[in-house]
Amino acid sequence: MTTVLKLGGSVITEKDRPETLDGETLAALASAVAESGVEDLVVVHGGGSFGHHHAADHGVSTTEGIRDVDGVMDVHGAMTTLNRFVLSRLHAEDVPAVPVHPFSAAVRDGDGDLTLMTEQVATMLEEGFVPVLHGDGVVHAGEGVTVLSGDEIVTAVATALDADRVGLCSTVPGVLDGDDEVIPRIEEFQSVADVLGVSDATDVTGGMAAKVRELLALGSPAYVFGPDAVPGFLAGEDVGTRIG
Amino acid sequence: MTTVLKLGGSVITEKDRPETLDGETLAALASAVAESGVEDLVVVHGGGSFGHHHAADHGVSTTEGIRDVDGVMDVHGAMTTLNRFVLSRLHAEDVPAVPVHPFSAAVRDGDGDLTLMTEQVATMLEEGFVPVLHGDGVVHAGEGVTVLSGDEIVTAVATALDADRVGLCSTVPGVLDGDDEVIPRIEEFQSVADVLGVSDATDVTGGMAAKVRELLALGSPAYVFGPDAVPGFLAGEDVGTRIG
Repeated sequence: MTTVLKLGGSVITEKDRPETLDGETLAALASAVAESGVEDLVVVHGGGSFGHHHAADHGVSTTEGIRDVDGVMDVHGAMTTLNRFVLSRLHAEDVPAVPVHPFSAAVRDGDGDLTLMTEQVATMLEEGFVPVLHGDGVVHAGEGVTVLSGDEIVTAVATALDADRVGLCSTVPGVLDGDDEVIPRIEEFQSVADVLGVSDATDVTGGMAAKVRELLALGSPAYVFGPDAVPGFLAGEDVGTRIG
Repeated sequence: MTTVLKLGGSVITEKDRPETLDGETLAALASAVAESGVEDLVVVHGGGSFGHHHAADHGVSTTEGIRDVDGVMDVHGAMTTLNRFVLSRLHAEDVPAVPVHPFSAAVRDGDGDLTLMTEQVATMLEEGFVPVLHGDGVVHAGEGVTVLSGDEIVTAVATALDADRVGLCSTVPGVLDGDDEVIPRIEEFQSVADVLGVSDATDVTGGMAAKVRELLALGSPAYVFGPDAVPGFLAGEDVGTRIG
């Protein structure tokens, strides 16, 4: 059974303070992964305060690119720095985590369509490793380099590996309705579109609405939940909001 | 016209001293690349003293793998460190170099056959970047992680991109015969097999004999030459030993 777990950038970093890790939360998440004993796990993490501020500074988004190599290296370098922190916390818990940097393994064509190599990810799982991917820059035909969001990676990896369960660990306990109550299940977009806003902090990748839309397109059930629900999700329980 | 330039690990590092850069030579090579003005250039570098000692310590080769994640991270981490030095020297010369880490973009199947993603490399060239790849670890079905040599990468990239010229910058001015004279041209392996030895320093990836054999299999001419001949190679001249 293949599981994809996304650790939201806002969860593992202080999103409003540039390049500041939320080390306590990250350590707790690493511990939850280790204790779950779950096999065939792919971890994806977002950019949070490591990626988004650099992206905003350089005016780069998922559709608007840059060719300035200093800008490209700022965004990619900050994301690989965050990735090293994530790997380090997982290694501290004896999770055999290995990095997969999407800038090295992905491309967008002139229509913006993404190709992400996943054969290496599948073999990493077979060999007992926990591949860790992350939001990153991606070379984009006609645009230079654009942003590749963690959520896009989740969709691409889950689809290619035919994942059985997808989990998005967010700062909120699920997708919230107008009364800030967790919506238990979302089966189509329009019914909840009016209650989905954008995140308060800078988020060049679209916030919760984009997450829900992408997760509905998956063939497998996806869950949105808060950090406290990670052990439950990894134990196979229904937690937070089930999408699809 | 697409050019692939390999910078040998022994050229850019002090191969007998662990993790020691040959900064002077690397800076001169970066300057030669910048001054050539050559377009559509892919750079590949070897491991030298950053990769080979770790690989030897952990008993990992291109065919014998490891599953210990600390060993995997030692080899991969040392190579990404060297890659950052190479990028930094190229950036100092205003070369728009971007990293492509093969551990993120490659896999070997159970027969040891390599798949390396190259679509992103092609788009990087089209967008005006200089992709820089390097010897690395690679996940290998049934073996864990094995070594992926810079020379294997040169072969894979040159073949996939249908490169027009391939250059291997080595510590010697070409492939040498029994009298230490440069052989001007090699068109088949057996005629020179008896004069090709292995390198004096630790080289888990096979030395000159493996290089020649792989280069003969390419569809494009390849050149083996010393650091002084890099400007000539990039200017389109015949330098060192022509193979194929």
